[in-house]
Amino acid sequence: MADLEEPKLEEDVQESLRQVLALLSKHRIVEQLVHKQDMRRHELVESLVHKQNLAELQKKLDELHPADVAYILEALPLEDRLIIWSLVKADRDGDILLAVSDAVRGTLIADMEPEELVAATEQLDTDEIADLAPDLPEEVIEDVFQSLSTEEREQLRAAMSYPEDSVGALMDFEMVTVREDVSLEVVLRYLRRLDELPDHTDQLFVVDRAEILKGVLPLGRVLVNDPDRLVSEVMTAETVHFEPGQRAELAAQAFERYDLVSAPVVDDRSKLVGRVTVAAVVDYIREESDSEMLNLAGLREEEDIFASVWNSAKNRWTWLAVNLVTAFIASRVIGIFEGSIERLVALAALMPIVAGIGGNSGNQTITMIVRAMALGQIQRANAKALLKKELAISLLNGVVWGTIFGFFATVLYDSIPLGLVMMAAMTLNLMVAALFGVFIPMLMQRFGRDPAVGSSVLITAITDSGGFFIFLGLATLFLL
Amino acid sequence: MADLEEPKLEEDVQESLRQVLALLSKHRIVEQLVHKQDMRRHELVESLVHKQNLAELQKKLDELHPADVAYILEALPLEDRLIIWSLVKADRDGDILLAVSDAVRGTLIADMEPEELVAATEQLDTDEIADLAPDLPEEVIEDVFQSLSTEEREQLRAAMSYPEDSVGALMDFEMVTVREDVSLEVVLRYLRRLDELPDHTDQLFVVDRAEILKGVLPLGRVLVNDPDRLVSEVMTAETVHFEPGQRAELAAQAFERYDLVSAPVVDDRSKLVGRVTVAAVVDYIREESDSEMLNLAGLREEEDIFASVWNSAKNRWTWLAVNLVTAFIASRVIGIFEGSIERLVALAALMPIVAGIGGNSGNQTITMIVRAMALGQIQRANAKALLKKELAISLLNGVVWGTIFGFFATVLYDSIPLGLVMMAAMTLNLMVAALFGVFIPMLMQRFGRDPAVGSSVLITAITDSGGFFIFLGLATLFLL
Repeated sequence: MADLEEPKLEEDVQESLRQVLALLSKHRIVEQLVHKQDMRRHELVESLVHKQNLAELQKKLDELHPADVAYILEALPLEDRLIIWSLVKADRDGDILLAVSDAVRGTLIADMEPEELVAATEQLDTDEIADLAPDLPEEVIEDVFQSLSTEEREQLRAAMSYPEDSVGALMDFEMVTVREDVSLEVVLRYLRRLDELPDHTDQLFVVDRAEILKGVLPLGRVLVNDPDRLVSEVMTAETVHFEPGQRAELAAQAFERYDLVSAPVVDDRSKLVGRVTVAAVVDYIREESDSEMLNLAGLREEEDIFASVWNSAKNRWTWLAVNLVTAFIASRVIGIFEGSIERLVALAALMPIVAGIGGNSGNQTITMIVRAMALGQIQRANAKALLKKELAISLLNGVVWGTIFGFFATVLYDSIPLGLVMMAAMTLNLMVAALFGVFIPMLMQRFGRDPAVGSSVLITAITDSGGFFIFLGLATLFLL
Repeated sequence: MADLEEPKLEEDVQESLRQVLALLSKHRIVEQLVHKQDMRRHELVESLVHKQNLAELQKKLDELHPADVAYILEALPLEDRLIIWSLVKADRDGDILLAVSDAVRGTLIADMEPEELVAATEQLDTDEIADLAPDLPEEVIEDVFQSLSTEEREQLRAAMSYPEDSVGALMDFEMVTVREDVSLEVVLRYLRRLDELPDHTDQLFVVDRAEILKGVLPLGRVLVNDPDRLVSEVMTAETVHFEPGQRAELAAQAFERYDLVSAPVVDDRSKLVGRVTVAAVVDYIREESDSEMLNLAGLREEEDIFASVWNSAKNRWTWLAVNLVTAFIASRVIGIFEGSIERLVALAALMPIVAGIGGNSGNQTITMIVRAMALGQIQRANAKALLKKELAISLLNGVVWGTIFGFFATVLYDSIPLGLVMMAAMTLNLMVAALFGVFIPMLMQRFGRDPAVGSSVLITAITDSGGFFIFLGLATLFLL
């Protein structure tokens, strides 16, 4: 028999989304009809068609994996989303809340009673509750704490205490531990007493009485080795392990580089406190690359596509404001040279080209440097070589593109000096772009800031204002 | 005893990089010394210090995991890189070639003899050889084919035939299969006969005599269930599976959504042909997000940070050229209004602000739409609602920011009409940005193109030229 909550491929999930949309629109037509005929609310609820419709929707939802219900909720406008949310069986609320995006989670939680929220957490592990915690009302968290065992309370408190980008935040507590002085036979018997192994258990953690990590025992080795052998003979003593306070990115790189499925997390006395699984790492990698992309485009965070106009605007204002301030500065730089532009109006038409090429080239440099930094490939020893290389490229670009656009300027405005100024300004602004493209991320890192955030805005600001200043300045000196 | 090739955390790997750099610089000092004293080459090679140095480097390298050697090779300038590459033991060449970036792989392969390359592939699985194949000389590939068994040749031919972004390209052939009519006891005995399980074997694939996939048997179930039970009773019959021709992104989404470790790949008659593991998926996700980021910044592909100036410039020219063409068009739009600028030079200083806010806001819209599209959340039914929302936001932004900058313009240039034109132009350009921010990605998708590539350049081109046209046009109409 097919699993009811069977996972589906993307295309099937989109098909489910279409079915839900069709059912919802049927539902709405019935409601409107009823509304027109001025039936009262309770009659509507009684109405057979209406009931049938909702039943069909509910059946459809019950067949879907929680991750797919989450996907459908994200794709629906608020009103429809809440209809669907009310049809989801309460025992799946927790898993679905975990799976939706932060933005959509807020809209769902706002629609729930405190008791429903407490009930939703009951199906979750403590590390999962910790993931939800920032979105839950204070009173709900207190109730949740009351309902946990002492050990779980400890775990939840620990999990909530780690900063968002730490290994601790990726960690869960579902590890299976064994002792090193027992035989594989004993391990096999112990495992058989469990109903099932936690997801992503590719290895057992070998600890002593004090829970100190001694090594790991891959499941494959339990299976291929003679049951009479001891755990200590078969386990791997030296293994990749993390501490809760380490950066999550560190764990992500190790998982990627060494193809890990799970890894132990220990405290500073080597005591096993949890594990990280590849599932948490995959989510982390995807979220990181998403938020980098969003920041680059000037969005503060992920946006519910059906968020209110007001909420969306707030999400976009921070970066819009920063960009407008830099545009204002560039505008004032032009203002200085208004006299020159009045005398030679061609300058106004040509100046955006000089600023533009600087911005594009500077962003290319900065992206390359930021990536190499993230990989730790930039040391003081090779920074100078990099700067030289970038300056050489900008010189080459300046000569090539400067000649082309200098030629255009000469032909369009019938002035060789204007062409030469154009060429010189493009080359100089490209060199400014290379210089700051290398320096900005390095300075940011020196001052302990993430070089990926804001670097792009900063370089564009510099090449805009710088480009206008260089071009208009050179023109004022040599042409007027 | 510690594994010699023990995986290391990022910080330890960086420490190794520093040690290698130190040893390399010692090596170079000795070479220079020898060079100055005009010793002949063979004397240098004989020299004791020199030998000692290289031996120390080699020892250091032997201790490192292939992925970490790859990391160090990527961080070294070409000359040093080739010294290190020559010190790496030949039996690790294949794994290291697989682990380095495409750009760096080219430099290493260029330095190797055909026989060395053939030898390097001998330690690799056929799916891994297929990954290297695009970089190998024709003759080497022919030799490799000769050295394979018939089955392996089939696999290699199949693996090389799948396009880069397909499930087939992520696939490997290391699956363990069992029959459904045997007991777990038999499975356990069968596994015990293997030396080890392939990496990422979290489940066995259940097939019949004709290799038709019947289900999967998670290792955990083999361990926790009574050995007398039959595979067919314990296995999961309905499972996520892929076909080699499907898009890799589909597999990535399924792995992420359902937290998979491995999944079977079948042909159109349900015959098992391979499997995808989470390790391949993690690499794919990272590469995809990298290349998206690089494209956004105007880089065609990943760049070896120590590539020659010429190679780097080529990598950057495509997008630079596109941007320059659009900048040229914008410049000609300004050219149309040179008469107006001559009469009111303030326009030249204010016009970049109007163009800038349109570009930023348009990029915000486009990023959000492209993401929602990638997740399949945009259907025809909700596209209209989205457009309305984006237009509403742009109207709000136009009123807010337009008022602020209209006020600035009024004060700076002592002209209320100029302030009003500024406000109107900003609002209109924001609406243009919203309109095209929604339409561009949708049109691209309609015509079967990836909406993520080039959308950003296109919207900026439209809001630049459009912004100049709207602002200068309004000014010409109402102020002059």
